[in-house]
Amino acid sequence: VSLDWTADAVTAKAVTERHFRVGDAPGTLWSPERGEAPLVLLGHGGTSSRAEPSVVATARRFVRHHGLAVAAIDAPFHGERRRREVRFPDVQALMRHMGSAELIEQVVSEWRATLDAVLDVDGILPRVGYWGLSMGTHLGVPTVAGEPGIEAAVLGLFGAIGGARQAAAAAEVTVPVMFVVQLDDELVPHGSAIELFQLLGSKDKRLHAHPGRHTEVPLDEIEDNGAFLKRHLST
Amino acid sequence: VSLDWTADAVTAKAVTERHFRVGDAPGTLWSPERGEAPLVLLGHGGTSSRAEPSVVATARRFVRHHGLAVAAIDAPFHGERRRREVRFPDVQALMRHMGSAELIEQVVSEWRATLDAVLDVDGILPRVGYWGLSMGTHLGVPTVAGEPGIEAAVLGLFGAIGGARQAAAAAEVTVPVMFVVQLDDELVPHGSAIELFQLLGSKDKRLHAHPGRHTEVPLDEIEDNGAFLKRHLST
Repeated sequence: VSLDWTADAVTAKAVTERHFRVGDAPGTLWSPERGEAPLVLLGHGGTSSRAEPSVVATARRFVRHHGLAVAAIDAPFHGERRRREVRFPDVQALMRHMGSAELIEQVVSEWRATLDAVLDVDGILPRVGYWGLSMGTHLGVPTVAGEPGIEAAVLGLFGAIGGARQAAAAAEVTVPVMFVVQLDDELVPHGSAIELFQLLGSKDKRLHAHPGRHTEVPLDEIEDNGAFLKRHLST
Repeated sequence: VSLDWTADAVTAKAVTERHFRVGDAPGTLWSPERGEAPLVLLGHGGTSSRAEPSVVATARRFVRHHGLAVAAIDAPFHGERRRREVRFPDVQALMRHMGSAELIEQVVSEWRATLDAVLDVDGILPRVGYWGLSMGTHLGVPTVAGEPGIEAAVLGLFGAIGGARQAAAAAEVTVPVMFVVQLDDELVPHGSAIELFQLLGSKDKRLHAHPGRHTEVPLDEIEDNGAFLKRHLST
């Protein structure tokens, strides 16, 4: 599967943004205007997309502050892939579908194809991390478990609600992990998030928790996430 | 109360170590060999002392890696202040005594006197943080609450076991806090530690948790603690 550029590159504040498609998945690559950078795969949250302002801000922050490149793809049924003809009765039903074995398998293979294609882009170093919270962790745990090229991951805002299949995938995550928890998370009880953290197979893992609700992760934490990924992808 | 130097300064690897006494409290000041540095008050853990190797290592790390100065005093009944004539039947009894209103009041006033005296030492900048885990948090919460000069604190490895008095002191801690938790802590259930974190009045607070037992806080975390204190005491 090859990468097709779908728009001209745009550079703003030293960050070059390029849209692409790999197979069915539309994606965006943010990279430093000049020089080489390790790559972070960014998995967006449920009902969000690669074009959502907070996702774009995180990607640009990782490029500007940490010298990373970031690739994001819209998950199935999200962003450009929302389909009029497929309707879910509510967000809960969409999220259940996103957690099905079939969807997870699809997403893992889309990330693999995206990774292979993006690593051929000039300036992208063959050092790879993953960042994804909430649905980005629901889909990210099996992605990190299944992709041996990923060397470090930031996960969180998701709980131990996936039974034996999730536990098995979590046990196969063995790279260094930084795990983000919001103590007043209205969607994910923090006890359940801590349980998922404890299921991860990684020896080198740390959990960072803050007061506040699901979407209130402080920017300081995003900075810590970027520094963590950069540290593990640079040495 | 003035500061009396009780031994000659010794400098090793760019860290100058000086022993002192303020009132009844014997202390040590570690500072950069040259230049000025903000001050961190270091409260050691139960049954430990300011001379314990891990305490000395943390102090020297803060000086060498983060350009801080560190002052530690032996808590009552600890280190040089252990008294043959006062015997506690076991560690639990000692810890109960250390948490009494009388002891806490004594420790808070010893830290105040130490702080006043150490701030007169050449090269010590009038910017003050606190670092103390376990008993260093048991005594540290009222110390940070009661000493308006303290601008940031690292606390942790202690739980919400102190009732209304502890809750009131915790609510009076309003400076930025980094709180350390060990998820397999055999002395402090992590749920109780999270509860104490939630009682802190600080708006700006974060909790860092790791796998492992009470004494297994990783060195990476100590580094994070130092960077956190330096950041808050430098700007």
